[in-house]
Amino acid sequence: MKKARTAAEWRRSKVTERMVSFSGGAGLMSKLGPLFQMEDGKRERHIPVIDCPDTVAAGKPFVINVTIGKEVNHPNTTEHHIKWIQVFFRPENDKFSYQIAHCDFAAHGDSVVGSGKGPVVTDHRVSVVVSVNGRGRIYALSMCNIHGLWESGKDLEVA
Amino acid sequence: MKKARTAAEWRRSKVTERMVSFSGGAGLMSKLGPLFQMEDGKRERHIPVIDCPDTVAAGKPFVINVTIGKEVNHPNTTEHHIKWIQVFFRPENDKFSYQIAHCDFAAHGDSVVGSGKGPVVTDHRVSVVVSVNGRGRIYALSMCNIHGLWESGKDLEVA
Amino acid sequence: MKKARTAAEWRRSKVTERMVSFSGGAGLMSKLGPLFQMEDGKRERHIPVIDCPDTVAAGKPFVINVTIGKEVNHPNTTEHHIKWIQVFFRPENDKFSYQIAHCDFAAHGDSVVGSGKGPVVTDHRVSVVVSVNGRGRIYALSMCNIHGLWESGKDLEVA
Amino acid sequence: MKKARTAAEWRRSKVTERMVSFSGGAGLMSKLGPLFQMEDGKRERHIPVIDCPDTVAAGKPFVINVTIGKEVNHPNTTEHHIKWIQVFFRPENDKFSYQIAHCDFAAHGDSVVGSGKGPVVTDHRVSVVVSVNGRGRIYALSMCNIHGLWESGKDLEVA
Repeated sequence: MKKARTAAEWRRSKVTERMVSFSGGAGLMSKLGPLFQMEDGKRERHIPVIDCPDTVAAGKPFVINVTIGKEVNHPNTTEHHIKWIQVFFRPENDKFSYQIAHCDFAAHGDSVVGSGKGPVVTDHRVSVVVSVNGRGRIYALSMCNIHGLWESGKDLEVA
Repeated sequence: MKKARTAAEWRRSKVTERMVSFSGGAGLMSKLGPLFQMEDGKRERHIPVIDCPDTVAAGKPFVINVTIGKEVNHPNTTEHHIKWIQVFFRPENDKFSYQIAHCDFAAHGDSVVGSGKGPVVTDHRVSVVVSVNGRGRIYALSMCNIHGLWESGKDLEVA
Repeated sequence: MKKARTAAEWRRSKVTERMVSFSGGAGLMSKLGPLFQMEDGKRERHIPVIDCPDTVAAGKPFVINVTIGKEVNHPNTTEHHIKWIQVFFRPENDKFSYQIAHCDFAAHGDSVVGSGKGPVVTDHRVSVVVSVNGRGRIYALSMCNIHGLWESGKDLEVA
Repeated sequence: MKKARTAAEWRRSKVTERMVSFSGGAGLMSKLGPLFQMEDGKRERHIPVIDCPDTVAAGKPFVINVTIGKEVNHPNTTEHHIKWIQVFFRPENDKFSYQIAHCDFAAHGDSVVGSGKGPVVTDHRVSVVVSVNGRGRIYALSMCNIHGLWESGKDLEVA
């Protein structure tokens, strides 16, 4: 993997507008990042698990499945549920990141007759289709309404 | 199918807050609904096509695939793309509707080096998983950034 | 206001791809539109009320405030809340509609210590800023988690 | 401020499911966080600037304005625009984070007659209303379609 520029190299560059892509800037560390949880006890049930090929062909669509929970399924009730999954892609040799998709899971059994008695429940999983032109890393970010933000990632190779 | 109350019956009812679910109220017709296009020439490419079983078991999860375009694929560029798909469910004997999911397709080849030269493109299709407890109708609503809103529907039976 | 083309005129036109913008097509009426409720009893509390100038200058940004409820505030709890507001614009002489914004209200007091005991609640109102180049109609669509979809509209003049 | 548990204290606790809220887990650092940029050259135009009171009353609604750009306004075209702003809240003595809102800016002048010639443009700013019951930190995350993810934060005191 090509070595990323250091903050010093960026400052010496001729780029008029310094778009620093790592750690937010010289010395500035993201404070939002640490809020993303990545370990969920022995029986994982909050991690947004990314399921897709390890290697894909450039420009050819492939499916990314993201599911919440590995060994244990996450609850899905009015009071406790997964609100959404967002998927991002960071190409290896790109200063920037791109959002692939954002999927809201909108139904959790809510109803006028009482929580959990509603007519429809949306499961916390989604499949999207994407194509890329180079290797990079896929990120998934999910949100539980009471347990906050959860993150996972998966490297992607392009043949 | 149980007959829906008429506007007159609603007015005579003892319900303090009249939640009228058809046509928005006595005489009030939705003005947003007519903005939803449902026919797209001979070679359909804007309709959000719903693909799911005709009949499902109550409470058992099933997959809903929604794809844009039937005979002809829709373009997917910075200048012309599908922004999102929303999925709704209207149970047969329910006054109200429920949103199942909302999926944004966020990447269309945008890039600092020029439109269409970006590293990632999200296809305009999504698969979600849902369970219902009674028959009804699934609705899909999609948005093209330059051709507006498109709608489709599919009846769902519960065995 | 210029008269919209009839279905017959569209068929005689030289447009290769017939993008029919009214009522979804010759004879096809939106089935999703009737699900949008517009009247909410005497003490309105579900209607997404649009507050913005009646007349604006072309190309000049103005604020659109959308609030749920008029005389009575809508509840905001884990079990009963407004999920989101979407805002659309239909220019008068345009075949198509455009989405202005979509705002999710994500916090309703949900918490590990019990519903309603959470540390944050998002109110069901939003302000966005937009500019238009011609007259048309603004639409707001909102969703209550147990009472479904609600619609309102407001004509906009451009001086 | 109550001292947060260390990773060691969590392991010794009787909590069956170890919900570790800092750095994702013992030794696990977020890899998505470093993608969030926080410094944008001398003339800032990507940072989502949070404007709200420094101190608020517990349980009383207050306005959070988030605007992109400080000294220089960010472009707003089909090819280059801000896609969305997300707002989060991390209470001081809470293991978890909560999303306040997610607002998509959907119109950027896209049109069938050409990019930038469309009838409506949504500005990259939003105002939401929220109430909290204790001090914490507000986070804003925004996305530029070609320059990626940007973050900012602001401490909030409760009187």
